[in-house]
Amino acid sequence: MSWEETLDYYGVLIEEEGKKFLTEAKKAAKAYHPFIEKVYSNIEEFVLRKGKKLASCSTLLAYEGYAGKIDNRILKACVSIELYRHCILVHDDLVDEDAQRRGGKTFHRLVAENYDDRLGCGTGVFVGDLMYALTLQAMLNSGFSQEKLNGVTLLLLEGYRNVNESQMLDLLFEFKEPGVDEWDVMASKRAASLFEITILVGGILGNAPERDLQILREAGMHMGYSFDIQDDIIDTFASLEQYGRPPGGDIALGKKPLHIIYTFKLASRDALNTLKNLASKERISPDDLESIRVIVRESGALEAAKEEAKEHAEKAKTLFAKTGLSDETKKFFTSMITYIEESLDWYK
Amino acid sequence: MSWEETLDYYGVLIEEEGKKFLTEAKKAAKAYHPFIEKVYSNIEEFVLRKGKKLASCSTLLAYEGYAGKIDNRILKACVSIELYRHCILVHDDLVDEDAQRRGGKTFHRLVAENYDDRLGCGTGVFVGDLMYALTLQAMLNSGFSQEKLNGVTLLLLEGYRNVNESQMLDLLFEFKEPGVDEWDVMASKRAASLFEITILVGGILGNAPERDLQILREAGMHMGYSFDIQDDIIDTFASLEQYGRPPGGDIALGKKPLHIIYTFKLASRDALNTLKNLASKERISPDDLESIRVIVRESGALEAAKEEAKEHAEKAKTLFAKTGLSDETKKFFTSMITYIEESLDWYK
Repeated sequence: MSWEETLDYYGVLIEEEGKKFLTEAKKAAKAYHPFIEKVYSNIEEFVLRKGKKLASCSTLLAYEGYAGKIDNRILKACVSIELYRHCILVHDDLVDEDAQRRGGKTFHRLVAENYDDRLGCGTGVFVGDLMYALTLQAMLNSGFSQEKLNGVTLLLLEGYRNVNESQMLDLLFEFKEPGVDEWDVMASKRAASLFEITILVGGILGNAPERDLQILREAGMHMGYSFDIQDDIIDTFASLEQYGRPPGGDIALGKKPLHIIYTFKLASRDALNTLKNLASKERISPDDLESIRVIVRESGALEAAKEEAKEHAEKAKTLFAKTGLSDETKKFFTSMITYIEESLDWYK
Repeated sequence: MSWEETLDYYGVLIEEEGKKFLTEAKKAAKAYHPFIEKVYSNIEEFVLRKGKKLASCSTLLAYEGYAGKIDNRILKACVSIELYRHCILVHDDLVDEDAQRRGGKTFHRLVAENYDDRLGCGTGVFVGDLMYALTLQAMLNSGFSQEKLNGVTLLLLEGYRNVNESQMLDLLFEFKEPGVDEWDVMASKRAASLFEITILVGGILGNAPERDLQILREAGMHMGYSFDIQDDIIDTFASLEQYGRPPGGDIALGKKPLHIIYTFKLASRDALNTLKNLASKERISPDDLESIRVIVRESGALEAAKEEAKEHAEKAKTLFAKTGLSDETKKFFTSMITYIEESLDWYK
C-alpha cells in the first residue's frame, strides 16, 4: 500500500472504533441533559469528519512497526490520539476565530449558529476541556498494561502543556516581530510536540526498545517541524481550490509564520514597509495577498522556509532509518515525509 | 481549632507546597520563553492568592481523618486540587467575562491589561488547559502508590468532564427558563461534583474503607449543593461590603440561580413581568437589583432556595456522621456546614 492508502485503510478502522467510544459517551450524556447529548453528537461529527488522520495513524504505524500487528487496544489508543488532536483544534479555532475546519464548521460555530456567539464561544471553551478529559479516559480504557498507560499518560500531559505554551507564544507573536530562533523555540512545542508524542505513544505501547524511544522522539519532532512550516506556507501560498478555504488567514490575523519571519530578515526596507502596510489592512484583498506573496518570494524568504522544512524532513528520515521499526513502517513514514518535501514545490 | 482556624492553618501549608511546585514549573518555563515565564508567575499569584482553600482543605481533612496524620504527599496532592479548582475558575471567569476574583484581577484580565483583549482571552483559554495538565502532573508526582494514583486520576477526569458539562448547561440556561429539577440536574455536576471529588480523593489516598467511599461521595455532593445554592444567593443578596465586588452579576448575565427559578414558579404573573423587565435591562442599577430582591423574597423563592440548601446541608452532616472519619475531621466538616447554613440567614 502507498502511504495514502495506508492512511485511508487505517483511518476507517480508527473511525469505527471512535464511533463506538463516542456512542457510549453520548449515552451517558443523554442521561444528563438533551443539550449535552447534542454537544456529544457535535463532538462525534467534528472528530470523525473526513480527513487524513496523520497523528493517530502515526501512533498506529509506530505500534505496528514494533508489535508486528495491530489489535483492538491500539485502535482504542488511536481514538484517544484523535480526541487529543481535536481538543487542541477546538481551542485553536476558537481563539483564531476560524469558521471552517476540514470542509465543515468549527466547533464553536456549530453551536453559535443554533444559538448565538456567547453560547458558541463558551461551549467551545468547555468542550475543548471536556474532550481532553475524554482523551485520557479513552487512553486509560484502551486495555494496555497499567505500566505502559502510566508512561503514555505522562506524555499526553507533557504534550498538552507544551502545545498550550506554544499557542500562547504564537498569539504573542501577533504583537511582535520574532526572530527565526524565537520561532524555532515556539514551534518546538507545536506540531513538533504533537508528532513527538503521537509517535512515541505508538512506540511505548508497541514495546519499542529503550534506545529507540529517544530516536523516535527526535524523528517525530523533525517530522512535526516540516509539517508545521509546510502548513503555514500553504496558508499563504495555496489557491482557494488547493486549500478549500480562502488563503491568507494567518497574515490577516497578524500571525508570524516562518516565511514571514524570514522576510523580515531578508527583504529590503521598502519591500518590508509595503508588506506591513498590506498586512495591517482591515481587509486583505486577493490582490493584496498576491503582492505579499511576491515580496516573500522575491526576498528569498519562501525559499529559506522551504529549505528549513526540507532539512527537518531529511533529519526525520535519517532518524527513522536508525530505528528498529519494521520496513513497512519505515516506508510509510519515509514516503509520507518525502511527499511533504515534494509538495513544497507546489507553492510558488 | 475552629474550622476557620483549621482552614487557615492548613491553607498556609498547602500554599508553601504550592509555591515549591510552581517555582519548579517556572524554571522550566524560563528556559522556554520569557513570556511563558511571566504567565507562570501570573499562575502562581492567581492560585496562591489569599482566600479560603475549601476544596483542597476538604481533601486534606478527609485524608487526615483516615490516615491519622498529614504528610508531604498529601500536601502535594492538595496543590493538585488547588490547581484543579483554579483551572476551572480561569475558564469560568473568561466565559462569564468577570474582571475580579478574590480581590485581584481574573486571569484573562491580568494579561489583557498588559496587552489587549485578544491576547488576554486567548491566553485565558490556553492557561486553563495548561493548568489542568499541571493538576494531573502534580497529583502523579505526589508520591502515593501507583494504584491509588490511578483511582484518583480517574476521579479527576470524571470531575473535569462533569464540571465542563454543567458549565455548558449553566450557559444554556441564559437562553431558557429551567425548572427546579433541571437546575438540580445541572448543579449535580458543579460544586456538588467538585466536593464529591475532593473529599473522595482525600478518602482514597488516606485508605478509607470501601464502604465509606460511597458515603463520602454523597456527603461531598450534598455539601457541594448547599455551597452552590448559598453562593448564588450571595451573588444576588449580599451588599457590596459583604461581597467585595458589586452584587447582581449573575442576574445581569441572565443566569438562572435556584432562587430565580423558584421565583418563576412562585411569583405572580405581574411580579414576574416586572422581574424580567428589570433583569433584561442593559444596566441593572442598585435600585433595580433591590426591586428584584423584593420580588424574589416576597414570592417565597428566597426561602425555598434556602430550605433546599439547608436540606442538603443536613443530609451531608448525617452522612459524615456515618463514616469512620476521625472525630476531629467530622467536627471540621460539620461545623463548616453548620456555618454555611447559619450564614444563609445573613441574606434577606
